[in-house]
Order: sequence, then C-alpha cells, then structure tokens
Amino acid sequence: MNLNFDHVTLGQRVLFGSGRAADSLADEVARLGARRVMVVASRSEARVAQAVTTHIDVAVFHDDVAPHVPIAKAESARAVAVDKAVDLLVCVGGGSTTGLAKAVALATGLPIVAVPTTYAGSEATNVWGLTEAARKTTGVDDRVLPVTVIYDAHLTLSLPVELSVASGLNGMAHCIDSMWAPRTDPINRALAAEGIRALAEGLPAIKGDPQDVSGREQTLYGAYLSAVAFASAGSGLHHKICHVLGGAYNLPHAQTHATVLPYVLAFNAPAAHEAERRIAAAFGTGTAVAGLSSLRATLDAPRALKDYGFDETQIPEAVELILPVVPDSNPRPVTATDLEALLRAAHAGETPVL
Amino acid sequence: MNLNFDHVTLGQRVLFGSGRAADSLADEVARLGARRVMVVASRSEARVAQAVTTHIDVAVFHDDVAPHVPIAKAESARAVAVDKAVDLLVCVGGGSTTGLAKAVALATGLPIVAVPTTYAGSEATNVWGLTEAARKTTGVDDRVLPVTVIYDAHLTLSLPVELSVASGLNGMAHCIDSMWAPRTDPINRALAAEGIRALAEGLPAIKGDPQDVSGREQTLYGAYLSAVAFASAGSGLHHKICHVLGGAYNLPHAQTHATVLPYVLAFNAPAAHEAERRIAAAFGTGTAVAGLSSLRATLDAPRALKDYGFDETQIPEAVELILPVVPDSNPRPVTATDLEALLRAAHAGETPVL
Repeated sequence: MNLNFDHVTLGQRVLFGSGRAADSLADEVARLGARRVMVVASRSEARVAQAVTTHIDVAVFHDDVAPHVPIAKAESARAVAVDKAVDLLVCVGGGSTTGLAKAVALATGLPIVAVPTTYAGSEATNVWGLTEAARKTTGVDDRVLPVTVIYDAHLTLSLPVELSVASGLNGMAHCIDSMWAPRTDPINRALAAEGIRALAEGLPAIKGDPQDVSGREQTLYGAYLSAVAFASAGSGLHHKICHVLGGAYNLPHAQTHATVLPYVLAFNAPAAHEAERRIAAAFGTGTAVAGLSSLRATLDAPRALKDYGFDETQIPEAVELILPVVPDSNPRPVTATDLEALLRAAHAGETPVL
Repeated sequence: MNLNFDHVTLGQRVLFGSGRAADSLADEVARLGARRVMVVASRSEARVAQAVTTHIDVAVFHDDVAPHVPIAKAESARAVAVDKAVDLLVCVGGGSTTGLAKAVALATGLPIVAVPTTYAGSEATNVWGLTEAARKTTGVDDRVLPVTVIYDAHLTLSLPVELSVASGLNGMAHCIDSMWAPRTDPINRALAAEGIRALAEGLPAIKGDPQDVSGREQTLYGAYLSAVAFASAGSGLHHKICHVLGGAYNLPHAQTHATVLPYVLAFNAPAAHEAERRIAAAFGTGTAVAGLSSLRATLDAPRALKDYGFDETQIPEAVELILPVVPDSNPRPVTATDLEALLRAAHAGETPVL
C-alpha cells in the first residue's frame, strides 16, 4: 500500500523527571525570560502549585478553575492576566486547569508552561474548549499548545487508583483509536504503539502499588503519547461512539471509554492488519484483542454499559445517532446491524468477538 | 529504571505522497502567503525543480550549489535572496541543496519549504553547516528547520541503487545510534525503531527493483525518521567512530558507516537490553544483530574497512583518537582494548561477535 499522508508535528519541549518539577520550572522561566508569571491551579492543587513554583517569582496565583472551562471563568482569568501584565502562564493541575490556561492563551497569545498532575493529556494538544450556556465549543489553535510540558510523576502519586486506571484507559483508547482515525499516518501509529506499550506497563504497576513511581512514570509518558497521537490523527470510530453515548445518555466519560474500547478493537482488528500487528506487538501478545483483554482483566476495568445507566431500549436510537458520524477512514464498513451488535455486546458486557 | 529526559520536538509539516510534490508545493506557497519564491536547486536537478515548481510563481532560480556549503556560495545565495526581495526559500535536491537553503535562512530568517530528492535527511533537522578554508563549522538553530517538507518518492526513482543503499544504511546508522546517543529518550527510540522497520522494508525492495515506488516511499520515510531521531538524540558511539575515521583517514562517508555499524551494534547490544529488543522487533528478527546482518547480506553492503583505504597499521592511532570522544551515554564502557578489537574486526570484515 502506498504512503500518502499529511502530518503536522507540533513543536514542544518535554521535560520529564520525577522530583524535578520545581527545578525544571525555574529553568524554563529563566530560559523564556519571563518576569510576570501567572500560576493557574485549582484550590485543591494549591499545595502542589506552591511546591512546584517555590524557585520562581509569581506575579499572581489564580485558582478560579472549574470543569469544562465556563466562559465566565475564562474571561475573569483573561482579565487577571491583562491586569497583572502577565508574560507567562504556568498551569499546575489536570485537564480543567490546563484548559483554563489555554483559554487565556487563546485570547492573549501568552505562552504556557504546563505541569500536569493527572493523565488527561491536554497539555500535548493544540485543542481548546469553552463552555457557554451548557454548550461546549472546541477549536484548534497552535497558540494554546504549551511551549513546554514538565512531567513529574511524583505529582501524580496521590491520584487514586480507580481514577488513574480510568484516565489511563482513556489514553489507551486514544492510542488505539489513532490507528484508524481520519488523519492517521504511520508516525501517529508508531507513537500510539509506544503509548500502548507504556500504558500496558504502567497501569498494572499502579494497580499493584499506587506509590510505584516507575508505573506512574510509564503511565504519564503513555498518556502524553496518546495525546500527541490523538492531536494529529483525530477521533476514530471509538471516540465517535463514546461521544454520542456520553452526550445523548449522559453516561460517565471514563467508564464509557473503558467499556466500549474492546468492542471497537474487536470489530476493526480483522480489517486493519497493520494496526492489529502494531497493537499486538505493543502489548507483547499474540493478538491486539488478547492484549487489551488481558490488561482489562488485570485492571478489573469497567465491563458493561448497563452498569453505567445505559438501557437496552436505547440501543436502536443510539445506532441512528452514531451511524452518520462514523468516520470514512474506518478500516471496516459499519452498518446499522454491526453497530447494534456492538452496542448490545457492550451493554451486556459480553466477551468481544472478532 | 526511571524515566528522566528532556525532549525537544521540532514543529514541522510533512506532506508525503508520490506524484504530489507540485500540487503540495502550490498549496504550501498559498498557505504561507509567499509571493517572492527563491528556488534553490543544483544544475543537475534543474529539470526536477522545474517540474516541481510548475504551479507556482518563481522570483528566482538559484543553482550555484556545491557540497558542504562553501561560505562563498552561501554569501552569494544570501545576496540573491536580499536582492530579489525573496519571502520564501524552496529547495529541491539532496543534502547540499538543503544545506545552502539553510545557510540563507540562518542569515535572513526566511522560511524554507524543502523538497528532498535523496535520503539525506537534512530537511528534518535544525542543524546547519558551512565550510570555510576547508574547515567545516556546524551549528544548531531552529530558523534553519524547514517549516514544511514535501516528500515525493517519484523524485527519488532515478537515485542509483548503490547510492540509495549507502544513503539508506546511513539512515539506519542514525536510527541504531540514536538508541544510545547522549540525548536519547524513549520518544527518539520509538521513532528510530519505526525508521528501522521502514528502511528494512524499503531498501531490499529498491535493491530488487529501483522503480519500486513502495520501496522508495518506505526508504524516504525511514530516512526522515532517522533524521528526526538523530536531531533529537545526537551522535552516539557509531558516529563518533566514523567521524574520526572519515576525518583522519579520509575514508568514504557512506561505506565507512555501512561497515562499522554492525560492530558497534554487536558491541553495545548485550549492555542495552531495551534498545536491543526494540531493534530486533523493528527488524522482525530474534536479535538486533541478526536483523542487521540479514539486511546487509540482502543488500550486499560494504563489509571491510580495508576495502576503503583503511590500513591495519592505522588502528592504534585511530584508537587513541576515538577514545576521548566516546560518549558518556554509551551503554557499555569502552576501553582501548575494546576499540582495537572492534576496529580490527571492521578492518578485516570479520563476522561481528557479541
């Protein structure tokens, strides 16, 4: 098969090292010549933010952070940045915190240095999101891509196992879905495979011992790669299905992803030989499905959509909603019958069949 | 082992597609809003450059290109760019042509769109080089990194098999050496492994049929990844050895790399488990050494330094010259005895032993 792709590599510095965050941040602030730093961190992350910023001068700490970046919070943060003549944004936290810093960068063009404390991955993408009147708008702008990401696995040690597993499996879903997403290419697939390898190593280690630094590092690294691959490849069949289920039936994000993924993989694998081979190799198992199943068993991952509020009677409607958004890039054609079978299996938690 | 690394990802667009170069270039010129394009291409590439630029307005064609970018050639090209009020550099050619465009960009800050016609890889790095009075100066500057690379394997079809193999094996050497170079990290290693996979697929196909477009594509793609990995990881033991041999004894570049590589791999592999595993998996063979040996046999690659002007009596001096430049990052300590044994084996073309 011929190679034909357009790939945009986003330029970014990644400073990765456990226990290094405060020193790395001081180095970056000096390198960037910043003098008026605005630190964005939620109240619950205040102690971590203080520790990470201990070696730098901070013009203002801003802790008015909320999920999904409400427009009012974005506007007030922007006003603070302008009012305090800020020249660098430093965000310390998870997806909501990074999202707020991105909203400020989008309006002001200020650079961001991101210090993630979860496995959300937003710090490695140029995607922004804002919520106004319960409606979420998203967009892509290179100005919101953090110039530098500082990964320090020590900052993730307090993330509970269940949340770590859910978040890590969401990263896994991005890696696997990147294999056949609309803008997939071999570069994305190579990075996604490396992400799968890292997450498959890291998540069981965290499950075994939440204080396992090496497991935290591998998971953080895998989550970063999953975001890089996703930012370049876009959303594939898996994410389209989960987006519909989450929006129409208010199913929980992480559990929906964790439950649906094996069924999409089992459906696509027979029609996506290269992806199947790469995923299997990354898991170190004979087949991709076997690798994911074994990991899910180890992690005791969510198994059935019926456990999370999805009702069997909703399946026909869900099929109608999903069918029009199935990506053309999907390696296997998707019929209404296929989708119904997939959703029935995911609803009941049946063993995925190829 | 803990993860600890600083990784700089260089931002760049890659447009990859056989037969697409002229259209992709027109799209890029429009996207960048360029109105005064300077096309850099050697006289021997004039016909290719004409074809590739057929859909764009060209302010000036510049064909005064020479190997290693002599400073006089750089200065005259810079003068042309200023004189013609150029706003975009387009280089069509191999390493020397890209190098000249980089020299202009270094002085003027003009963006570059690179259209490579060989497997040199310079288009994917921020490294520049200039030669003055037979002395080569190199440096690193993000301004010389092409904003966009347009890869069209049709442009490489006329590259002779022997040159393709030598150039591709040089890319292979960058991939393998990236596994233990001073700034190596798992991202570089993942990209380098993907490069090995692509080169191991592409080079035998070219050897079998120089008109095999798919083989040309895989080789071009692998050469790109080898340059990305090298730009980030730096030079490892292999490149230090080849640099000394090339400089002190005037050995031919490509043949020296092709000959020395298996001995460095055999030396380091036992002390670099992760690298060994990644390389072996990329080759699809039991061990890294077996994969490289099998590829070299298929390609009928250069085997012994004695065939290229290196004399046995020069080995002790070479050892003295190489020892001080052995990178601290090398996974296995390197003694004078080790180096002597390595050079003796490479001189004679003995089977590399682990």
